[in-house]
Amino acid sequence: MPVTDSIDPSDQPDPAQMQLTPDGNLRHLLTLRGLEKNLLSQLLDLSEDFLSPLGESAVRSDQLKGRTIANLFFEPSTRTRASFELAAKRLGAEVLNLDVNTSSRIKGESILDTIYTLQAMQIDVFVVRDAGAGIPAYIARHVDPYISILNAGEADVSHPTQGLLDLLTIRRHKSDFENLKVVIVGDIAHSRVARSAVEGLTTMGVGELHLVSPPALAPDPVTMRGATISHDLDKSICDADVIMALRIQRERIDNLQDVPNVEDYFSNYGISRARMQRAAPDAIVMHPGPMNRGIEIESEVADGPQSAITRQVQNGVAVRMALLTAVVETLGTR
Amino acid sequence: MPVTDSIDPSDQPDPAQMQLTPDGNLRHLLTLRGLEKNLLSQLLDLSEDFLSPLGESAVRSDQLKGRTIANLFFEPSTRTRASFELAAKRLGAEVLNLDVNTSSRIKGESILDTIYTLQAMQIDVFVVRDAGAGIPAYIARHVDPYISILNAGEADVSHPTQGLLDLLTIRRHKSDFENLKVVIVGDIAHSRVARSAVEGLTTMGVGELHLVSPPALAPDPVTMRGATISHDLDKSICDADVIMALRIQRERIDNLQDVPNVEDYFSNYGISRARMQRAAPDAIVMHPGPMNRGIEIESEVADGPQSAITRQVQNGVAVRMALLTAVVETLGTR
Amino acid sequence: MPVTDSIDPSDQPDPAQMQLTPDGNLRHLLTLRGLEKNLLSQLLDLSEDFLSPLGESAVRSDQLKGRTIANLFFEPSTRTRASFELAAKRLGAEVLNLDVNTSSRIKGESILDTIYTLQAMQIDVFVVRDAGAGIPAYIARHVDPYISILNAGEADVSHPTQGLLDLLTIRRHKSDFENLKVVIVGDIAHSRVARSAVEGLTTMGVGELHLVSPPALAPDPVTMRGATISHDLDKSICDADVIMALRIQRERIDNLQDVPNVEDYFSNYGISRARMQRAAPDAIVMHPGPMNRGIEIESEVADGPQSAITRQVQNGVAVRMALLTAVVETLGTR
Repeated sequence: MPVTDSIDPSDQPDPAQMQLTPDGNLRHLLTLRGLEKNLLSQLLDLSEDFLSPLGESAVRSDQLKGRTIANLFFEPSTRTRASFELAAKRLGAEVLNLDVNTSSRIKGESILDTIYTLQAMQIDVFVVRDAGAGIPAYIARHVDPYISILNAGEADVSHPTQGLLDLLTIRRHKSDFENLKVVIVGDIAHSRVARSAVEGLTTMGVGELHLVSPPALAPDPVTMRGATISHDLDKSICDADVIMALRIQRERIDNLQDVPNVEDYFSNYGISRARMQRAAPDAIVMHPGPMNRGIEIESEVADGPQSAITRQVQNGVAVRMALLTAVVETLGTR
Repeated sequence: MPVTDSIDPSDQPDPAQMQLTPDGNLRHLLTLRGLEKNLLSQLLDLSEDFLSPLGESAVRSDQLKGRTIANLFFEPSTRTRASFELAAKRLGAEVLNLDVNTSSRIKGESILDTIYTLQAMQIDVFVVRDAGAGIPAYIARHVDPYISILNAGEADVSHPTQGLLDLLTIRRHKSDFENLKVVIVGDIAHSRVARSAVEGLTTMGVGELHLVSPPALAPDPVTMRGATISHDLDKSICDADVIMALRIQRERIDNLQDVPNVEDYFSNYGISRARMQRAAPDAIVMHPGPMNRGIEIESEVADGPQSAITRQVQNGVAVRMALLTAVVETLGTR
Repeated sequence: MPVTDSIDPSDQPDPAQMQLTPDGNLRHLLTLRGLEKNLLSQLLDLSEDFLSPLGESAVRSDQLKGRTIANLFFEPSTRTRASFELAAKRLGAEVLNLDVNTSSRIKGESILDTIYTLQAMQIDVFVVRDAGAGIPAYIARHVDPYISILNAGEADVSHPTQGLLDLLTIRRHKSDFENLKVVIVGDIAHSRVARSAVEGLTTMGVGELHLVSPPALAPDPVTMRGATISHDLDKSICDADVIMALRIQRERIDNLQDVPNVEDYFSNYGISRARMQRAAPDAIVMHPGPMNRGIEIESEVADGPQSAITRQVQNGVAVRMALLTAVVETLGTR
């Protein structure tokens, strides 16, 4: 009888089917899967409006004045929480930060009751990060019709706002997706960043998409349709236009047979200056952060002229501003 | 010589005598005890101004522009802290959140020195939650004359803003208090929610008030004057107009002789659909949250048409907006 | 190769040389050392504009509207964090609070990568508190040219905003510094508050400056040039105009040979009413807080007419408002 926090995602409706209103407008962002190219392009276009050169004032407006955004982070996060918080504040919204340590969840309240409670406080948008698969869709399925859910990171399943900021970063550096060769390298198996990037890039019609990892960390090919799976970075990186390194958990390396330590990991899968010689001369390097410098990526590359890593962060705020305005517009005037 | 955090509440002046200015205006809210029916009614009337239908924009104003509200929560809380934070922000105030984990209290600073420090930063209203009995009154006694204290939950003694939101919820569903039969069920002995509800309902002239609990969790009859104490919910619930279930700590159940487990607790004291058949047909069900579904209340009741639980939450924001405007008006223009 | 959080301060450029633009305007505040009397006086003058009588409304403006201030506190703090947060909000800035417990640092991200990330989110001013010596200067050295760093407490090295608020408090009570006798008493060896006070007072041309401590907690005389070091408070306090008590960690007392317990500490180094008889009749008493009442200072003195302790707190907000406006003016319009 008690509502618990254990959700069986296979029991849930497909999040890809729950995001749009009957008119085709974005109400929730739960996953990039199932969103059409046209909609993704519109969101990227809208994001451009929220970019200003670094060193100039951040773009601000009053478009969300009178709205309340709640950040519900059940996993710790600096960058994503800060990015959403700034996005909401720069649009004039009120922001409520709730993190797990001080929340009623420690008293055993179910997630859903927390949501019902906050919903009754007339919050407009919930930004949810959770370690449990299926939680954002589960919440989206139960909230009132005038509320939006934005997935800010879901287990190893999905991180759609990261996927969008990755698309925006690539689009701003390269004119189109069709002729690009993109390589994603690292712990593909456990990466929500990789999943959302693959979903977004596939929809945008990317030319070639290579997923490179140690054999033990390779993805399930079924979930990564349209991508080439490999274990040989030196080969895959040839003539690549975009190289995206993923964060690896050091504990994972310790359990690998083929790559038993960080030195071996770096030598096989790290993005080094030497290895970048094989990529296209104007290739860009991306990383979702936080970086393990010297493991996934050499500092000289992370801080070098081909790095788009800080641009990703800046684009992240713009993408979140675009999403907030988009879903609030869908919700309509009140 | 050192000021300590151990306050002997019996040494303190009666909080009920400290809340009003000589003119009878509300300066602090420490307890509902001693507040007259007329004042409570005015606060409920004022709260109505801050309600809008769910799904519409929350009510906002600039009445507290230029004021600073500090949330001092020495006990963890999601809902009450969020409710006060939103209330203050929607009135245009600046909000400072301070919680025990990051506070100087870990360095051994006394509560009073923390208050003196914040007072010197020109904070206008302190919202205080503490596990220590007598703390809000102790603070109220020591602050400068241009500062208000709102009690946001005090040990098992008092939770006056919860009491007010409960009154507002009842008043909005039922036209008057005089003809009502109200049943409060649960761990009455340790419940600050029950205490404040009893104080408020008694002042409002409630028709019948029944407090139902396992024998070991019965209240001291002296502190609950005017209420009927019982251990038989099936009998007390007959023809009740309002049933308020309280949260019980599972650890407490383990120590009960008569009700040794949660199944027994639910079967004797839980609000089930079956049991609701005995209440008045238009009875409402309340719970302060967070709920233990399946222990105090059946999910079908909590989520059913007679539930006023989410209304309580919404009314909570309105009541806190009313209180903030009331005490700031009492403090006067500066 | 990995950037680590261990900074060797001796490898760093001198923070005193990094704070001003070529035009002599304040860009960062890392230390009071090296700042000229004229500049300190201007900052104190500017701070006066942000003071209003306690009991009146706090001073507010929109001078920082459109700016974002990030509080990066890698050490817990109530008063300093609250003071900076209120200062920024009362100037109309957006504030982002980041504390170590919820930050990516727990995932191993280096401080610098955290800064680079936040910088890309178009934050204007970083307020940094850290237990590591050299961290604020290290950060200042690496940020983009349109960003300011304010040191909010650095190991036992420096606490320049505390130093400024101490200067402001003294200046508001005493007309000039030249004829003053100032006594600082406590754990001088480990006190960043003492260091910054000595630096500021020396620059302002204080008449006499005495540093009193148990022998084991005496400062390195080289770093405290211009001050008289003593272990006899009864002698040093004679005719003093300003007595500043420092907070002592109780654990430190346990390791002292000469002063083995808190009673002995109070009897030798505590500020008592009896001892205050030896000071000038209009002497003021200061303490940076949080106080150990009965150890460093008698409650009757802390709360008595000669205490300037709450004034220090109020002046702290004003000093931080002045600093924020000063560095943002240096950064220029965007």
